[in-house]
Amino acid sequence: MMNAADLVSEALAGSVRALAKLITMVENEMPGAVEALQQLYPRTGQAYVVGITGPPGSGKSTLTDKITKELRKKKFTVGIVAVDPTSPFTGGALLGDRLRMQDIASDEGVFVRSMATRGMLGGLSKATADTIKILDACGKDFILIETVGVGQDEVDIVRTADTTLLISVPGLGDEIQALKAGIMEIGDIFVVNKADREGADRLAMELNLMLGLNQAAGPWKPPVLKTIATMGEGISDLSEKIFEHRKFLKEGNGLLSKRNLRAREEIINLIEEEISKYIHKMLKYDITFDEVIEQVVARKKDPYSYARKVTEPFAKYYQIYKMDKARS
Amino acid sequence: MMNAADLVSEALAGSVRALAKLITMVENEMPGAVEALQQLYPRTGQAYVVGITGPPGSGKSTLTDKITKELRKKKFTVGIVAVDPTSPFTGGALLGDRLRMQDIASDEGVFVRSMATRGMLGGLSKATADTIKILDACGKDFILIETVGVGQDEVDIVRTADTTLLISVPGLGDEIQALKAGIMEIGDIFVVNKADREGADRLAMELNLMLGLNQAAGPWKPPVLKTIATMGEGISDLSEKIFEHRKFLKEGNGLLSKRNLRAREEIINLIEEEISKYIHKMLKYDITFDEVIEQVVARKKDPYSYARKVTEPFAKYYQIYKMDKARS
Repeated sequence: MMNAADLVSEALAGSVRALAKLITMVENEMPGAVEALQQLYPRTGQAYVVGITGPPGSGKSTLTDKITKELRKKKFTVGIVAVDPTSPFTGGALLGDRLRMQDIASDEGVFVRSMATRGMLGGLSKATADTIKILDACGKDFILIETVGVGQDEVDIVRTADTTLLISVPGLGDEIQALKAGIMEIGDIFVVNKADREGADRLAMELNLMLGLNQAAGPWKPPVLKTIATMGEGISDLSEKIFEHRKFLKEGNGLLSKRNLRAREEIINLIEEEISKYIHKMLKYDITFDEVIEQVVARKKDPYSYARKVTEPFAKYYQIYKMDKARS
Repeated sequence: MMNAADLVSEALAGSVRALAKLITMVENEMPGAVEALQQLYPRTGQAYVVGITGPPGSGKSTLTDKITKELRKKKFTVGIVAVDPTSPFTGGALLGDRLRMQDIASDEGVFVRSMATRGMLGGLSKATADTIKILDACGKDFILIETVGVGQDEVDIVRTADTTLLISVPGLGDEIQALKAGIMEIGDIFVVNKADREGADRLAMELNLMLGLNQAAGPWKPPVLKTIATMGEGISDLSEKIFEHRKFLKEGNGLLSKRNLRAREEIINLIEEEISKYIHKMLKYDITFDEVIEQVVARKKDPYSYARKVTEPFAKYYQIYKMDKARS
């Protein structure tokens, strides 16, 4: 097997195979993964990240493909990360990959990667964030993240985007529309796809109405656009809006503050994850832990007191650490 | 405001208002929440927890209501926790609550609680697990958790159930069926609801086929049942299957090992969460952290090295802790 440093060099030199291997390495937290990310990190921060989210059947993939083609016309390179919440049980993500490949695989300026929800060690949002960094470092100008917008993990993913598109579609039923509404706050551009369907105008109107009611809205007023992705209709306007939002973020303080916030969250997550690994390791080899579990299940001990007891010395330790910080 | 100990006493004495307040307290991690859970914990472990999951539009709520009525016929008390991934932005969860209330609110043996996905401090799965404990301690015989089965958080929720029902429905389109497949591994009983719709038999057959292919299957062979929840058809059989699975788990070692596993995960989560709070607190008041973030965003520092540096003394500390454990 190739080592991390070699993979990084080859990926940076343009090898698609090395790039794919690197992502697998990081996704599965294989040895060398952190070193690879450390090496790549100084080269990141150049790509612009667009999140594309909406319910199943809203046409996200088609929309993503069409936006990709629009970006390619402008000579931008594109990385696509498709987050698919199906398990290895069905192989859904892989199948999706292959179907898409037929369309844009021949284009060397596009790299597509699917990620399945289940069985990720560090969680899906971490794997996605790492993949974005790898694509970024390897020179992709735009990175499109496509995901079904439900679940906290997926909302976290979308929050890592610079611009977020929320896709809805007429006639999916009220409950699915409600799902979408759950992440309305994070939408920068709203898209009513399949706009040739009945109810498109009403849906667009409703979205505009809801957006008007959103008191938390800032200086950017999220527009509502209609598209028919399969026909390519409205895609050019949509791309323009993405550029407009990018310009808005870059000219104001928006992009920097978004990225500051993201870096803050990421560092905290990394610290937590690192500590979590020690805890798992420790408890795994601590035979007294098995006894504790039995006592907890038998209701002779409660888990809250035990957790506090275990972390008590840690709390004391961090007090000292904090004081050291204050002194230096 | 009432203190935690009083709320606990009143809830245990049967006050529905105290019970509801207690859940709110725990959900929002208000002062006294942990103490309340500590107090309640010895009384938990009696309730049987059934997870009901399926895509939007599969009729989960109706099915949950009908199962509830079946359980009530047998004089069991029931707690329902409806996990609704919509945000406060639309108030979806509350509305659902009210609609359901009209149906079973008059029954004192049933307690219904909706939980929204967003804005939970400790995460949705923790809030749900805590709510289950409260309902359990307050004497509910059965607790039904109803949730859209997508996203890691929701899968975690369903995994806390003793018996899990996976609901599917004909004619929702392939993509939604694929979503459902993502959690197929955790289904104990499969339900094809709206079985009067075209394609119900085919769907049931496909499910049986997929289940037959599942090599990881244990001694319990998940059955596939057809229901028409709105008409009450198939509900009695479904309830029987739930009892059958419960008997299977209780007679074998299944229930105990499930609950051992759950306790282990819960304790680890509690420890991680406790430590996470210290980290957040520390970094919040550490002005050098703001500088670090700026350097990370400017790519002068990488987040991985920083996270390792911060946790390094912690790693050393835990080595000592571990040695202490080994000695004692």
